[in-house]
Amino acid sequence: MKRSDRLVAMTNYLVEHPMELISLPFFSDMYGAAKSSISEDLAIINKVFKEDGIGYLESVSGAAGGVKYIPDVSKERAGKIIEKLCLELEDPSRILPGGYLFMSDILGNPSTVRNIGRLFASRFTGLNIDSVVTVATKGIPIAYAAAEFLHVPVIIVRRDPKVTEGSTVSINYVSGSSKKSKRWYCQNEA
Amino acid sequence: MKRSDRLVAMTNYLVEHPMELISLPFFSDMYGAAKSSISEDLAIINKVFKEDGIGYLESVSGAAGGVKYIPDVSKERAGKIIEKLCLELEDPSRILPGGYLFMSDILGNPSTVRNIGRLFASRFTGLNIDSVVTVATKGIPIAYAAAEFLHVPVIIVRRDPKVTEGSTVSINYVSGSSKKSKRWYCQNEA
Repeated sequence: MKRSDRLVAMTNYLVEHPMELISLPFFSDMYGAAKSSISEDLAIINKVFKEDGIGYLESVSGAAGGVKYIPDVSKERAGKIIEKLCLELEDPSRILPGGYLFMSDILGNPSTVRNIGRLFASRFTGLNIDSVVTVATKGIPIAYAAAEFLHVPVIIVRRDPKVTEGSTVSINYVSGSSKKSKRWYCQNEA
Repeated sequence: MKRSDRLVAMTNYLVEHPMELISLPFFSDMYGAAKSSISEDLAIINKVFKEDGIGYLESVSGAAGGVKYIPDVSKERAGKIIEKLCLELEDPSRILPGGYLFMSDILGNPSTVRNIGRLFASRFTGLNIDSVVTVATKGIPIAYAAAEFLHVPVIIVRRDPKVTEGSTVSINYVSGSSKKSKRWYCQNEA
């Protein structure tokens, strides 16, 4: 495989596997290239990812070492995403009866949701996150988007546990608005 | 920008924008390269995407032309994904009281969900899909994953319409299991 081909394949592999440690021999074997060539490829990818503002490659040395794609959003890129969101949200025709804000079109756009998830994730890549927890239902898409970039599972907390979820952990709390005691249920992950 | 750098940046741009028509001048301007160089880059990317079994680039000629990344999953790649899913699902310890199947761990894994979405999407790339419709709540993550690859919005159909969703379209139906009349609500997209 030529360098140009490897760069395309490796870029795609890395962005599809964020926060996963990939050993150099894995790439060597997969693309039939020397480790030194793979290292040079990774240096090119790292440089472009940084310039593009989508993150960087972290090298882990030693026998169990390798490379990890850390998704990150540059300030400039984040600013653009947030500015576009604000522009969309400030449209007065979004105000619904009762003063609610219509956002279903924005939250129904998968690439917007993916960008929001990436923004969230980039603030947590250094914190060894175990999982992303969300409350059903509106939060689910953003939770998945963030969890994908963090390479962790999603746990959904519900008011009404479903029999298909197996055993659950529940907590009681007093609602701030209604002052009534309520209960949340959460999947009991092994 | 050198070819090696462009290949990394363009690969990432294309996989982040599936089913979007991108004009050659857009890439030319962005990376400061001649259209002929960009065409050669795209040929390399197309070849590697096909070999990798993740789709292909479609060229649209003419003044309004450009290139579009069509996500597709090769039979070989699809077989591996499905086989892995089957192996996970056939574990007898998944059977819950009442004969239900525990799947929350699988559906809580964002990369599994993304792969399932990609599989679904790859069967619909040629059909000019307008949107992906899902029934709340379990279907939401897979719907978003498929919709992302198809570059279309997600519409969520619910039993209980929320005031924050604005106007809704509803349909009545008779449930096959309970023989009772029920109603589904769907966002009324502009």
